[in-house]
Amino acid sequence: MQRLPGFRDFYPEPLPTSDVWSADARTWIFSRWRETARRYGFREYDGPPLEPLELFTLKSGEEIVGQLYNFTDKGEREVAMRPEMTPTLARLVSDAQRHYKKPFKWFAIPQLFRYEKQQKGRLREHFQFNADIIGESNPGIDAELIALVIDSLRATGLTADDFVIRLSSRNAWQQFFEQAGGKPENAYAFYQAVDKLEREQPDVSAKKFADVGVQIDSVNQFIESGQPTEELQSVIEQLTARGLGEFVKIDYHIIRGLAYYTGVVFEAFDRKGEFRAIAGGGRYDNLVKLISGGKVDLPAIGFGMGDVVLTNLLQERGKLPEFTAGIDVYMLIEDESLRGESLKVIQQLRESGKAIEFSTGPLKSDKQFKRALELKSKFMVRVEKSADGALVCRCKNLQTRDEKTVPATELETWASGW
Amino acid sequence: MQRLPGFRDFYPEPLPTSDVWSADARTWIFSRWRETARRYGFREYDGPPLEPLELFTLKSGEEIVGQLYNFTDKGEREVAMRPEMTPTLARLVSDAQRHYKKPFKWFAIPQLFRYEKQQKGRLREHFQFNADIIGESNPGIDAELIALVIDSLRATGLTADDFVIRLSSRNAWQQFFEQAGGKPENAYAFYQAVDKLEREQPDVSAKKFADVGVQIDSVNQFIESGQPTEELQSVIEQLTARGLGEFVKIDYHIIRGLAYYTGVVFEAFDRKGEFRAIAGGGRYDNLVKLISGGKVDLPAIGFGMGDVVLTNLLQERGKLPEFTAGIDVYMLIEDESLRGESLKVIQQLRESGKAIEFSTGPLKSDKQFKRALELKSKFMVRVEKSADGALVCRCKNLQTRDEKTVPATELETWASGW
Repeated sequence: MQRLPGFRDFYPEPLPTSDVWSADARTWIFSRWRETARRYGFREYDGPPLEPLELFTLKSGEEIVGQLYNFTDKGEREVAMRPEMTPTLARLVSDAQRHYKKPFKWFAIPQLFRYEKQQKGRLREHFQFNADIIGESNPGIDAELIALVIDSLRATGLTADDFVIRLSSRNAWQQFFEQAGGKPENAYAFYQAVDKLEREQPDVSAKKFADVGVQIDSVNQFIESGQPTEELQSVIEQLTARGLGEFVKIDYHIIRGLAYYTGVVFEAFDRKGEFRAIAGGGRYDNLVKLISGGKVDLPAIGFGMGDVVLTNLLQERGKLPEFTAGIDVYMLIEDESLRGESLKVIQQLRESGKAIEFSTGPLKSDKQFKRALELKSKFMVRVEKSADGALVCRCKNLQTRDEKTVPATELETWASGW
Repeated sequence: MQRLPGFRDFYPEPLPTSDVWSADARTWIFSRWRETARRYGFREYDGPPLEPLELFTLKSGEEIVGQLYNFTDKGEREVAMRPEMTPTLARLVSDAQRHYKKPFKWFAIPQLFRYEKQQKGRLREHFQFNADIIGESNPGIDAELIALVIDSLRATGLTADDFVIRLSSRNAWQQFFEQAGGKPENAYAFYQAVDKLEREQPDVSAKKFADVGVQIDSVNQFIESGQPTEELQSVIEQLTARGLGEFVKIDYHIIRGLAYYTGVVFEAFDRKGEFRAIAGGGRYDNLVKLISGGKVDLPAIGFGMGDVVLTNLLQERGKLPEFTAGIDVYMLIEDESLRGESLKVIQQLRESGKAIEFSTGPLKSDKQFKRALELKSKFMVRVEKSADGALVCRCKNLQTRDEKTVPATELETWASGW
């Protein structure tokens, strides 16, 4: 009985085989994301992983259905497992926007699903850190969101040597296209051609541009110029004021494929260019209106950062911590008549926040000791009865091999100093 | 565009409407679960939310399909959104058991899905804290797992006045049934009748028992006797040694409906009996063998604790904290020429772990002050240039209204003392 292709099993470390993922690393990455979001004043939200199919086709058209896990449920509803979070966010926002002060700074860590061909760094499910700021249009907001992208990656130990944010502007490209005499009905095809420019053969790209009336040379020239628009200049200045200037560069190769972006767009890449984009996002000032059926009209900017590419990158760069059970004390029970007293001490230590392991049944001392070492426990403690009948705890530091004897009543106080 | 019935939207607090759930409370409950599991030496795992349909029918029979979100995927695979975690766990364990030391103590917090009639405390999805100990059969393990149930609930602020673990034994019931002359082929029907005894009319129950050759009076007598088996006695003694005796009682009403339980079984209930079971579990020594197709044979005990009943109970008992954005500093920017310097201070404070909010664009001072109060920020800080050109931070404690002026270079040190 195997798991479905493109889906992952997450195991505790050390991992049993190379085709499974680390649950410890996942929890650690999520906590880095959540902690960074907190420092930026972002609040968490979530929606159902199963939504009405229409929520997704409304935004992306019927062609998205071919890539979805969609079906008819037992109540004859057309439903789909969510392929992205933005439509759900737009639904939540349009339902509740009157109750919150604007701008909202919201984040979520949904699992997303796409039925598509598996490739390196691309499975059929992934978790995605989604953060959005809704209800504010000044460029300070763009800088704030991009700073969150940067600090979320820095929180995992990555530095300016490891990644860079390639910053661009849909507005700049729109202006370029208009000045080149492009027709509005060809704008989307033009954006798509720019999006694929880096990955396609020059003659394929040249033909695509020619088809929408643009010379590929002028496109390349515009990219090479790298002149920041006023809007991008402001973003860069604000990031520089924060001390984050080295993490961004203007790069007009970036345009984001999707139709709905409206202003600043960006993608985060590893500096060596070995991986797919680590994160991507941008302004989508018209999307909330579209999804709310015109009910609510709010400017917005957001990004998504998947767990697959990030985990691969952290692994490759040796930035992932080694995870263990984090056991503080292995309680050695040699004398079964002291099991009750040992359990009492175990409970007290756990209540004081320590992680404790022990053998729940009789086991030879050497096997208990071996287990303590396997678990990389910091201490081994044994409850003993001293000559006067008082209970004492013999504590051994398993790194230094130092030993210390503490009255059982004082163990908790002593443990608080570890 | 509405969410599907039986699914939930999770919003940041304060909640906009009464039909949505708190994302903050959810994250808090998950962190209480995860933290308690850590203290008990449990490791996290997870599997795909979508699995081959057969994984679930193998354990529960074809009749479960009527309650599943199942469909045929685009690769012609019969698949289902997971209704429970145990089959996935058994799959993971049978694939990797050679690589881990036994017993495994593993937990997960999966979202589970069932297409069934909605009732109070029962939706079509919920999150469930699942913890299992696999590969060990001594009764000390049962006590260890039940202690985890107790401490997971205590970690949310519930006390012995709020909940109790009703402890029972499938073995005891099996013995009772055999001594009453019941035939093995009727055992499952008998267990089902015991399981429903509390919720059905006495004459309905009496008939069910008569059908399998048992007198309802003898059943009631056995329940009233409440005599612990040796196995249960050991569990109670070990919980008592830990100081957790007041959280459990023998109660043979509990038997757990599912076919696969084999020994100790238990359910956690609120003391007032107002809610459905908060958690439930027991021994299932034969299930890993069944699901692994005989490949792996390991004893096991586990429980599940859902988020819906627990959240309702915590809410009802006033045990849920009030959640805010947890802002430490609202940075007041009155002088736009100092925005760059203010951004630098914001970045430094965030890097030291503080949560900072500010207006990304020009805004009247009184509106910024109002926003700081709405956010319940602890401090408001304003960067100023003193007469000698040095930057100072004017800090106002928004609870006490105390003010203090600190050189900008010293703000971080000062903040570390908050």
